[in-house]
Amino acid sequence: MYQSMDFKGYDLSNESEEIVPIGSLNHLSTKYEPMAKGSGIPAVKCFLNGIKVPRLIRLKTLVVKVIGVTCVALGGMWGGKEGPMIHAGSIVAAGVSQGKSITFNKDLGALNFFREDHEKRDFVSGGAAAGIAAAFGAPVGGLLFSLEEGASFWNQALTWRTFFGSMVSMFTLHSVLSAYHGHPGDLTYKGLLNFGEFDDLSYHILDIPVFVLMGIVGGLTGALFCHLNLKLFIFRKRYVNKDWKKILEVLIVCATTVTISFLLILFTSDCKKLGLDPTDHPIQFGCNDGEFNAMASLWFQLLEGTVRSLFHDTPDVFNTTTVVYFCICAYFITLWTYGVHFSGGVLIPGLCTGAAWGRLVGRAVFHFFPNTNIGIYSLIGAASQLGGITRMTISLTIILVEATGSITFGLPLMICLMTAKWVGDFFSESIYDTQIELSGMPLLAWDPPPLSSNIYANNLMTHPVITFKTKETVGNIVKILKTYSHNGFPVIEYVQNYELDEGKTKCYLRGLILRSQLIVLLENKVFDGPLTNYWDSVTMETFREDYPRYSSIDDIELLQNDLKLTIDLSRFMNPSPYIVQHTMSLPRVFKLFRAMGLRHIVVVNDSNEVAGIVTRKDLARYKVIRHMGKICVTELQFSSKMD
Amino acid sequence: MYQSMDFKGYDLSNESEEIVPIGSLNHLSTKYEPMAKGSGIPAVKCFLNGIKVPRLIRLKTLVVKVIGVTCVALGGMWGGKEGPMIHAGSIVAAGVSQGKSITFNKDLGALNFFREDHEKRDFVSGGAAAGIAAAFGAPVGGLLFSLEEGASFWNQALTWRTFFGSMVSMFTLHSVLSAYHGHPGDLTYKGLLNFGEFDDLSYHILDIPVFVLMGIVGGLTGALFCHLNLKLFIFRKRYVNKDWKKILEVLIVCATTVTISFLLILFTSDCKKLGLDPTDHPIQFGCNDGEFNAMASLWFQLLEGTVRSLFHDTPDVFNTTTVVYFCICAYFITLWTYGVHFSGGVLIPGLCTGAAWGRLVGRAVFHFFPNTNIGIYSLIGAASQLGGITRMTISLTIILVEATGSITFGLPLMICLMTAKWVGDFFSESIYDTQIELSGMPLLAWDPPPLSSNIYANNLMTHPVITFKTKETVGNIVKILKTYSHNGFPVIEYVQNYELDEGKTKCYLRGLILRSQLIVLLENKVFDGPLTNYWDSVTMETFREDYPRYSSIDDIELLQNDLKLTIDLSRFMNPSPYIVQHTMSLPRVFKLFRAMGLRHIVVVNDSNEVAGIVTRKDLARYKVIRHMGKICVTELQFSSKMD
Repeated sequence: MYQSMDFKGYDLSNESEEIVPIGSLNHLSTKYEPMAKGSGIPAVKCFLNGIKVPRLIRLKTLVVKVIGVTCVALGGMWGGKEGPMIHAGSIVAAGVSQGKSITFNKDLGALNFFREDHEKRDFVSGGAAAGIAAAFGAPVGGLLFSLEEGASFWNQALTWRTFFGSMVSMFTLHSVLSAYHGHPGDLTYKGLLNFGEFDDLSYHILDIPVFVLMGIVGGLTGALFCHLNLKLFIFRKRYVNKDWKKILEVLIVCATTVTISFLLILFTSDCKKLGLDPTDHPIQFGCNDGEFNAMASLWFQLLEGTVRSLFHDTPDVFNTTTVVYFCICAYFITLWTYGVHFSGGVLIPGLCTGAAWGRLVGRAVFHFFPNTNIGIYSLIGAASQLGGITRMTISLTIILVEATGSITFGLPLMICLMTAKWVGDFFSESIYDTQIELSGMPLLAWDPPPLSSNIYANNLMTHPVITFKTKETVGNIVKILKTYSHNGFPVIEYVQNYELDEGKTKCYLRGLILRSQLIVLLENKVFDGPLTNYWDSVTMETFREDYPRYSSIDDIELLQNDLKLTIDLSRFMNPSPYIVQHTMSLPRVFKLFRAMGLRHIVVVNDSNEVAGIVTRKDLARYKVIRHMGKICVTELQFSSKMD
Repeated sequence: MYQSMDFKGYDLSNESEEIVPIGSLNHLSTKYEPMAKGSGIPAVKCFLNGIKVPRLIRLKTLVVKVIGVTCVALGGMWGGKEGPMIHAGSIVAAGVSQGKSITFNKDLGALNFFREDHEKRDFVSGGAAAGIAAAFGAPVGGLLFSLEEGASFWNQALTWRTFFGSMVSMFTLHSVLSAYHGHPGDLTYKGLLNFGEFDDLSYHILDIPVFVLMGIVGGLTGALFCHLNLKLFIFRKRYVNKDWKKILEVLIVCATTVTISFLLILFTSDCKKLGLDPTDHPIQFGCNDGEFNAMASLWFQLLEGTVRSLFHDTPDVFNTTTVVYFCICAYFITLWTYGVHFSGGVLIPGLCTGAAWGRLVGRAVFHFFPNTNIGIYSLIGAASQLGGITRMTISLTIILVEATGSITFGLPLMICLMTAKWVGDFFSESIYDTQIELSGMPLLAWDPPPLSSNIYANNLMTHPVITFKTKETVGNIVKILKTYSHNGFPVIEYVQNYELDEGKTKCYLRGLILRSQLIVLLENKVFDGPLTNYWDSVTMETFREDYPRYSSIDDIELLQNDLKLTIDLSRFMNPSPYIVQHTMSLPRVFKLFRAMGLRHIVVVNDSNEVAGIVTRKDLARYKVIRHMGKICVTELQFSSKMD
């Protein structure tokens, strides 16, 4: 609390300086690292889903993000630092695991057994969990977040490591914070709870219908939020398309936020006697001596502090009108802010908005039953609002349980989050899924699309397939790699077949080879023949060395003579890729793809000839559109390069 | 507390009656339903792993189990009721989902879309979670238990439903208990916490090395426990092999337990002044008026009550010698009791033993630092001991966190549980895995066995395979079903192939058909021909109706003429089973099998001819043996009938 007030004081006295860091941040994230934009949660979600997101987990992104989010938090913009912390956690985890940095062009040579897509994804999911653990002090919530959003195959060892990572992350945070607060070593100090401790979280069975109603409200306002944000997104795509326009928008958002807050503080003049306000530095701001301005105490804290005030302050601290104005402004500022070009998330602004209207509900109940603890309603409101926007369920329940330190309140939280999700899903997709869809990422859902069991691998697959023979000429490989952008190629063998027609050949599947493997083979000139490298010189190390950024085919220089030589692909290919028969239905193909975390499935016909290939793009094309309770399956088109 | 003392009083005054219910229970579980024996956790674990465990989830088993566990708890035997509650939860869930009872031979006809192995397994995993939630008041722990022990494919919807089920289970329990304790409707009443509330669970960083040491002790004693229990198991298999011997053993165990407790109470004479004991009915037992017997207050409670006393009672309630004697006796009684023929688990006895020696550690620390809260050490001791025995990690951490209501204490619990697991795994397998292995169940581990990547599907598979042609004669089907006990049969088609040798045929894979499907087809006489049922009359319903117990092939009566007719299997078979090529390595086959929850994988050769079939038995055969830190892979032999 002390910290936040202190910084705010700085901001106030130097209002002109407030905008500078955001401008520079915006400049940073627009110019230098567009991946640092936004909360990062949608991008991390895509990465964990198995999509290659370029530059998502680079050191440069981390630096830009950290600077950006610090500026945003200090500058008073309505962006949460929790989403970016999840992203930052992922980058740190992925970076540590690789033992090299592309930004610094340095390779420590260590840990290179982790240089593999699956391993890296595991680290990112652990990092995301650690990020949540640090952001909310919620290690179990972090674990479940990374499971809910990321993992598809439940792996006990990974889960255990993730949980341990989250625990250590929280432990470190608490060690530092407890020392900062003057209780070094005391890790159970109550002040470490993110949203403060509720003295009394008891509820009665009769409260539950009220919680359900609040969940419905959260779902409705959340769906409206997603819908309006989508419109804003489209507007931005069309009109805010230049760097200077993006920077200008950030400046306008920031200026508007500040102006609104000052106007509200001046005109509501909600002055209360000193002593009610639990903050360390109450703000006088236009009130008489011995009083403080309640509206100002809402605006002049970090957002976490505001949430804490709304949860815990006694009923008479804020006038009803103060909370009403604050709530409406909070909703629309959050709506406008989420999606501008800066580093900040929607988690805390969403909680803050919900806590405000939840407090209003609490006040109404308090009017009739003076024993009511209005903090409970504030908490339920916060959960409903955020649940309606993000549709997170299990993880959000547990995050809030851990951040408030009360286990018994799990059931009401869960009931309202579930209601919010159901109501919200009826009208729109979650804010993250909306963003992912608009960005054209082929995200695969948990379950195969409904009504799709009459679609077969036959219809699904891409064909004809570009294939290689087991012994292929270098010239052919180079030509194909230059012509097509595919990442995986089935390797086949021609066999003469006299069954129907003399001379007709059948091409049996022998394996699958990746573009990156071919590039490494070409670079190392692993050709058959006495004058070239013998294939023994290529080890696992050679393939790992360049991970994750292999050369482009255009950068490889080969002699004219080389092109006539051959490579024995059967020595390097995966000799037993996962295959499906052409008669397999979409749901079964989908499950195989999702559960095994595949990138390619080769489709074969009855006699094991290659019929086609199924990639993520082919599966993500069948998309469920949910609108006003109706469900339909459509076929989307993706740009290429996604296989 | 009140409740438990009351029942104990009853036991005391009627000691002769104490043995009767256990005798009858034993009689019940021995005679009528052997599946009701033990804690049920190993069996539920096997079921969730995908193994058919006969009679595991029948109503009769539930009734015997509930009666049994009630008698055990009241009779003062050292068996926990938590394991059986998990089993009971599973049965209730599976029963509700099926809408029919085999015990009562009644089919409500409802919910028959759930009559499928996968659906049933999902319900069982939800039921197990609800069981934990009710036993410990730990819904998140229940969720993670069912993930840790059961699920292999992470399914968001299932997880969410499981979590909701656990929450409702805890909610119901708390509603009933709060009314019982005189606070109806107050679901946050502190008395509902399973192990009582710790006033102060603060710990210092310097405590952590002590916790690690305690984890090591827990791991060592846990491994010793598993080892000795294994020896006992073998002894029992050899000598306690008749019903009357089993009943006799239970009687001996029970009598010994009671005798030891009385002897200890009489001879330690640990008399304390009334007022120290927090129980409602202190027991005088040989002490002077105005005093109570501390040793008796440990023995004459339900085990949960004893754990609560060890956690929360002030340091001067028990003499050190009292706790030392109690601890040693508890360890050996638990060791002897777990595995006799009764319904009871090891969870609470394990916690109780650990809480006792943890309290001793706490006393030692208290001697030097009088500010120490010895309850913390007792809690860590309990966790270490149980962790060393069961090797549960994530779920046990969270169960204890929820059962004591303290989130901040998660990290120390986790550290000691991890240490206990590592130390224990060095010497032996967990008690559950030991039991499963001895019972010969082909349980599949999480990961493929190490050092197995040079084993290929070729070596792994069972061959030759019994196959059917797409159009097969009834006589042939009956003959094969009678001769072999396999559950899945590839369906093939012969195609003339002139490639090498005129007249040589190739048998391409066309699909997979299950024994149960064939039985239904035979029963309904779905044969080709004008005089038999047309195949349209067979719907999904026909196949579901008999689930899960289909007739035996010997019970089906067919006319001599029927045997000459054919069945068109291609209409009913699964036309696209998951297949692997014969060159796929064991780890990849294993992952496919485990992730997709399969029962059969058909192995094909290069030209899609059936080469063999891989079942659970084939995969479980390669088993890692961990002994004194050494790892080796062995090939086990299973009895047949497990595919």
